[in-house]
Amino acid sequence: MSDNKIRIGITQGDINGIGYEVILKTFAEPEIFELCTPIVYGSPKLAAYHKKALELPTVYNAIENESEAQGDKLNIINCNDDEVHIELGTTTKESGKAAFEALEKAIAACKEGKVDVLVTAPINKDAIQSDSFDFPGHTEYLQQRMENDEKALMILCSDELRFALVTSHIPLRNVADAITPELLEEKIKLFNKSLKVDFNINAPKIAVLALNPHAGDNGLIGTEEQTVIKPTIERMNQEGILCYGPFPADGFMGSCNYTRFDGILAMYHDQGLAPMKALGMDNGVNFTAGLSVVRTSPAHGVAYDIAGKGCADENSFRQAIYAAIDIYRNRKNDEYTHRNPLRKQYFEKRDDSNRLNLQQNDND
Amino acid sequence: MSDNKIRIGITQGDINGIGYEVILKTFAEPEIFELCTPIVYGSPKLAAYHKKALELPTVYNAIENESEAQGDKLNIINCNDDEVHIELGTTTKESGKAAFEALEKAIAACKEGKVDVLVTAPINKDAIQSDSFDFPGHTEYLQQRMENDEKALMILCSDELRFALVTSHIPLRNVADAITPELLEEKIKLFNKSLKVDFNINAPKIAVLALNPHAGDNGLIGTEEQTVIKPTIERMNQEGILCYGPFPADGFMGSCNYTRFDGILAMYHDQGLAPMKALGMDNGVNFTAGLSVVRTSPAHGVAYDIAGKGCADENSFRQAIYAAIDIYRNRKNDEYTHRNPLRKQYFEKRDDSNRLNLQQNDND
Repeated sequence: MSDNKIRIGITQGDINGIGYEVILKTFAEPEIFELCTPIVYGSPKLAAYHKKALELPTVYNAIENESEAQGDKLNIINCNDDEVHIELGTTTKESGKAAFEALEKAIAACKEGKVDVLVTAPINKDAIQSDSFDFPGHTEYLQQRMENDEKALMILCSDELRFALVTSHIPLRNVADAITPELLEEKIKLFNKSLKVDFNINAPKIAVLALNPHAGDNGLIGTEEQTVIKPTIERMNQEGILCYGPFPADGFMGSCNYTRFDGILAMYHDQGLAPMKALGMDNGVNFTAGLSVVRTSPAHGVAYDIAGKGCADENSFRQAIYAAIDIYRNRKNDEYTHRNPLRKQYFEKRDDSNRLNLQQNDND
Repeated sequence: MSDNKIRIGITQGDINGIGYEVILKTFAEPEIFELCTPIVYGSPKLAAYHKKALELPTVYNAIENESEAQGDKLNIINCNDDEVHIELGTTTKESGKAAFEALEKAIAACKEGKVDVLVTAPINKDAIQSDSFDFPGHTEYLQQRMENDEKALMILCSDELRFALVTSHIPLRNVADAITPELLEEKIKLFNKSLKVDFNINAPKIAVLALNPHAGDNGLIGTEEQTVIKPTIERMNQEGILCYGPFPADGFMGSCNYTRFDGILAMYHDQGLAPMKALGMDNGVNFTAGLSVVRTSPAHGVAYDIAGKGCADENSFRQAIYAAIDIYRNRKNDEYTHRNPLRKQYFEKRDDSNRLNLQQNDND
């Protein structure tokens, strides 16, 4: 690769769903190659199957390793047996294995710096389960495999909205117990940092949703707002993080209050994702904050019901590509800006003369 | 009252919130009196305060009892002490007491047939709590006071959508345990009946949402779909009720699938109300199905933050009035239609002659 375009590692996801369809549709238009060099971790044979079945014009390029990637084609590295069979719209162990092998190779490429960002096509969480993959989803698996110091945070974002989740893929009955002051603090801090670094918002304002209906109505229907959420918000405020709430989820979404915040922290999966998707999932992108690599994915699933029918909308996947590029650039800019910081200089607040006080130390 | 317009009993709700504002705004326009005769259970003195403060043109008529109600004015029956004080935007025991007294008198009027339907302005659930009112909300209180055989069902409806809730005002940590096959069956049947009788839909199709994220992903993240929800849906199908699911809440809302159903049954408060309100609460109306009296209310709360500012939108309250009238009429029509049923007559399905088979019995 002679250019310095961003290299995007793309996993094929579940081969019986709409993964290949949205990948092939996204890279059917030549303009997108101006932004990035895509490298799909999957199988040229499977791609050919989907391309032919759906009569798509996408030009792809089967390669052995990342150095062969061409900037104007959809590069595909084979990660699977040649024997893999497609059974559209069904869960098979074979499809789970194929998805897992692709994911593993893509993660290795990320770690070795062969790709800059990672965009994952949807997997079937049931098919992919095995001894090596005992996780409810991509987010949890990547958190472990990327060997992060920090925990991962799932953020659903569109142009207008960013929803982060305190808990994600756990049963609803375990949600209330999972929300501890420690976890909430961790997620607020991660969200705040990600909004600054990944989304380039200087002083992000975060809305924290309540756990119980009507935010517990002062303890009448649930006490977690009083015992966990409010105290944590106050502690975070003292540390200089602009977070507010807890807001009752329904009223908050109804009042259009969400337009006044840079991010919304929901307590559990459906509380964040159901209103977000109701507002229009076309542009929805799933971003895993807190990982060393930038990873995004479309907000939809494998969509077995429409697999192979050619009617899948590739917009969410395309937005996932755009978001990955934006976030990668924001991170680079942030790194560049903070690379060699000047000592901060303070004006004495009580001094009316507006004179610069060069004696004050930087305690930041 | 010499006319036969529908008489609407209206409770004043919390006197420190936006209750009077939305009532007075709704009845500021003379056209609405063509549809109904409103009787507010509250206080002419408090109404005068709000009317003056907000400079509203509404004409009201202080009356002693329902027989004095005039068809072209907002009739108000005094239910409170003359000493009640308004403290806009705050919770006071006084406001709770005033709301409770009005509600009690309105319920008595419903029982005695002095009003046809009940529309309640929002209460502050914290202020109204007392030895006599130990309930999380209107819905639960009315269920007890109306001495119903059947349980009540909370339905949030707009022109396009009807959301019913299996559980409503309970802490989130109690939701999973509360969802038993018995409760779910009860709610599906109530919803089905209400859609038929109250909304005049002959063969309603009901979507049932899942409890866990991704509908439990085949048991990976929660088992209630497999142990409780699916079996109940199948049992209901065998009884001829058209219910489907369980659908993952986020995907269901995102795919616009909801437009294909007459009703959506959510497992808990925020799962139903947050997406519903995100889609636009302007027309949202809360309807309590299963009561002997038709009761609706606006979908918003007391809105202390904008109380007395004159900027409250009365549309939801107006829709609550319309919905109450529609549902009352639908019930009357249903009663009329089923009053004196003819024996059903069947055509023999296998017989091509289109001949009426008068021998077949009606097993319905």
